[in-house]
Amino acid sequence: MTLQRTADAAMIRADIRTGAFTGHTSGMAPGKLQCNLAILPAVHALDFLRFCQRNPKPCPVVGVSETGDPMLPTLGRDIDIRTDVPRYRVFRDGILSGEVNDIKDLWRDDLVTVALGCSFTFENALIRAGIPVRHIEDGVNVPMFRTNIPLVPAGPFKGNMVVTMRPIPEAMVEQAHEISANFPQAHGAPIAKGDPRALGIQDLSMPDYGDAVAVKPGEVPVYWACGVTPQNVLLDARLPLCITHSPGHMLISDVAEDAETPIYHP
Amino acid sequence: MTLQRTADAAMIRADIRTGAFTGHTSGMAPGKLQCNLAILPAVHALDFLRFCQRNPKPCPVVGVSETGDPMLPTLGRDIDIRTDVPRYRVFRDGILSGEVNDIKDLWRDDLVTVALGCSFTFENALIRAGIPVRHIEDGVNVPMFRTNIPLVPAGPFKGNMVVTMRPIPEAMVEQAHEISANFPQAHGAPIAKGDPRALGIQDLSMPDYGDAVAVKPGEVPVYWACGVTPQNVLLDARLPLCITHSPGHMLISDVAEDAETPIYHP
Repeated sequence: MTLQRTADAAMIRADIRTGAFTGHTSGMAPGKLQCNLAILPAVHALDFLRFCQRNPKPCPVVGVSETGDPMLPTLGRDIDIRTDVPRYRVFRDGILSGEVNDIKDLWRDDLVTVALGCSFTFENALIRAGIPVRHIEDGVNVPMFRTNIPLVPAGPFKGNMVVTMRPIPEAMVEQAHEISANFPQAHGAPIAKGDPRALGIQDLSMPDYGDAVAVKPGEVPVYWACGVTPQNVLLDARLPLCITHSPGHMLISDVAEDAETPIYHP
Repeated sequence: MTLQRTADAAMIRADIRTGAFTGHTSGMAPGKLQCNLAILPAVHALDFLRFCQRNPKPCPVVGVSETGDPMLPTLGRDIDIRTDVPRYRVFRDGILSGEVNDIKDLWRDDLVTVALGCSFTFENALIRAGIPVRHIEDGVNVPMFRTNIPLVPAGPFKGNMVVTMRPIPEAMVEQAHEISANFPQAHGAPIAKGDPRALGIQDLSMPDYGDAVAVKPGEVPVYWACGVTPQNVLLDARLPLCITHSPGHMLISDVAEDAETPIYHP
């Protein structure tokens, strides 16, 4: 795999489309908004958009396709959602039925793509400001935890929020808050800090998803709303068909991550 | 303070519900988000939400009801959209068929309410910062203009953007930009400034809606996306039934206008 991680978004998507690249997208095309994905039948799309509107911290909608149209022109040039994501997960009745590198054979005239902002965006901004991001230093996945924070329901979509945790040096917590608040399309400001039990988290060394990281002396665990939230909610709704990206294998858009809106202007 | 303000919004809505108040809501319940309204049949709601997502500057969605449910719990306590707006406009096939003080007799099981942020919010913030807002000084409606700026279409919804214009002293233009940018749920930063012809506006003294205001020497005309945009788009789509607020007669929510999200937490 010789692909430059700093190649531009269109070049990386081209290699993804041909199957030349099927890996994680963390750190690729710096400065471009990366997206979580939910592809679902149109009959459920209105309820899902209502759910996202009511839970904007875990579910920041950055793009919605036309029904049956695999293209996403508001997120970039020539984005075909059937081929331009490195890996997909296919769920039937809420059960993982397979992991694939394209969904050309699964596409249907009634599918709607919903793209959601992801935390890669504010992590880049934290690092630029000199704030350490432990799981990136350690080369592991961010630790994620189920919480007791209820989501606002819509139709069949309901549940509790999933959060990511990053240990931040106490003197930098306020700055980390302010920086991430600038990215409402990427989960925005933290939803809590400190005692995990206040969120119903029993043990920070036992994440529900991802990998554990150390919280060192002088560091505060800081919690951000997580894009796994809508994925869990979708699975729990047991839709007949639902397709998401595989964790870490995001859609790389042409939208600047610090743009005022997530709408691509050619 | 917060309790008092919350009480204010609830008290005003109570007077609106009984019909004791049917006037403009400009300046009422300071600090609370006020909303433009679009009430439409569910069969068009997915397309309309897609349209708003693609045009977030003129169409910032702050609330969406369940289909057939007149309550808006994410925008405040006990908000009944059938009665809690001072005046409504009813459109049939894109034609104004009447103006009413409640829509109890018009409510149907297939209606969806979409609430959109309005510019009252950032005007309050401009005034607090000492930036003059001419139409408020003059006691008239803000001047609004059709532009040649195309909107991103969705289903039957398409057209050009409508903007408001406020003359700002040249030295304050940047500050006005920064302040309004803090309110993405209320049209956010200006979309342009200066020469009206660049937007296809022929004559600033002849607004398409609202009232003309003077642009004095040393002032720059500054243009913001306007909530009349989605109203025009809805009318042009000639839906069999569509209900909006009457201009200036907004829904007053319980959400703080500077809240990170427009979701009310009791």
